[in-house]
Amino acid sequence: MDELKTRILTEGKILPGNIIKVGSFLNHQVDTALMGRMADEFAKHFDISRITKILTIEASGIALATVCSFKWGIPLLFAKKAKSDNIENGLFCSEIYSYTYKKNVTVMVESELLKSTDHVLIMDDFLANGEAIRGLTDLVKEAGATLEGIGIAVEKGFQGGGDRFRKMGIDIYSLAVIDSAEVGKIVFRN
Amino acid sequence: MDELKTRILTEGKILPGNIIKVGSFLNHQVDTALMGRMADEFAKHFDISRITKILTIEASGIALATVCSFKWGIPLLFAKKAKSDNIENGLFCSEIYSYTYKKNVTVMVESELLKSTDHVLIMDDFLANGEAIRGLTDLVKEAGATLEGIGIAVEKGFQGGGDRFRKMGIDIYSLAVIDSAEVGKIVFRN
Repeated sequence: MDELKTRILTEGKILPGNIIKVGSFLNHQVDTALMGRMADEFAKHFDISRITKILTIEASGIALATVCSFKWGIPLLFAKKAKSDNIENGLFCSEIYSYTYKKNVTVMVESELLKSTDHVLIMDDFLANGEAIRGLTDLVKEAGATLEGIGIAVEKGFQGGGDRFRKMGIDIYSLAVIDSAEVGKIVFRN
Repeated sequence: MDELKTRILTEGKILPGNIIKVGSFLNHQVDTALMGRMADEFAKHFDISRITKILTIEASGIALATVCSFKWGIPLLFAKKAKSDNIENGLFCSEIYSYTYKKNVTVMVESELLKSTDHVLIMDDFLANGEAIRGLTDLVKEAGATLEGIGIAVEKGFQGGGDRFRKMGIDIYSLAVIDSAEVGKIVFRN
């Protein structure tokens, strides 16, 4: 998506360790109008009429998934990390490694909110090594639901997570795939 | 807001410790269409034309704030909790006590994203003791920005946080204020 790539080039910052910072419009401050156009872009690729639930993970995936849910009229479910007091019932859980926090994290959804009859589109703002998304696909499997695809705003292609899902035959669509990111130079995949 | 109160009465669950669980439509699964109508309700109370930034805090506040941002065409900024690797620059910070996680948490926004010229509407899905919101008002103060008001979906009135802000003269508007919550019985404030 050209508009997103332009925003990454003009506003993104590369930090040491190949960290790409897009906090001025994607995952700290959020340009929700841009996200509306991103939703339109996803709707060209995925058959939205098949989707019964959008699944994302807290925290920064929620904004993009919310705009898509609002525009498409499809319920949103966001997986939670770790255990908090006000989750009591049966849970679907998966353990992932968080590179951001450098520790294992449990991702979970309440089992009554994800049914075997659900057709799920997983969405997130970022995909790097794919641990968070792998955790979400685990939850979909546990529920016996159907995974319709994975929609990502920015994929760090050089970290391999996205290609691993592609090799598994999963329909994954990223609006911008970055193949290399060094200070002063970002190269997008064609 | 009658529709929200009805949803709380029909779908909400009261857990021991006065925990009100509304994860089927507000903060785990999210009914974004309902949130669109909640945005309309907030717009009757606040003068939206004055607002230049919506400020919320991760994670569950993001969904409501995103729908409001999208409908009103106003940028959203969500404060982050604790320190993660990909925040480098100058930060506005405040320490709050999280009753959910039973520990102190630092809330922060990058200083370049909140300006002294901003007119801020703080939003969150829940208000109980008010610690999270107090942290957000600290960030607004630190930035020298103008606090225009606080918009809340569900206020647990019996925990006093909302009334403390009212006594300070802050324009706080909650769509549903719960004055008591016992198993089987929820009483709303008129």
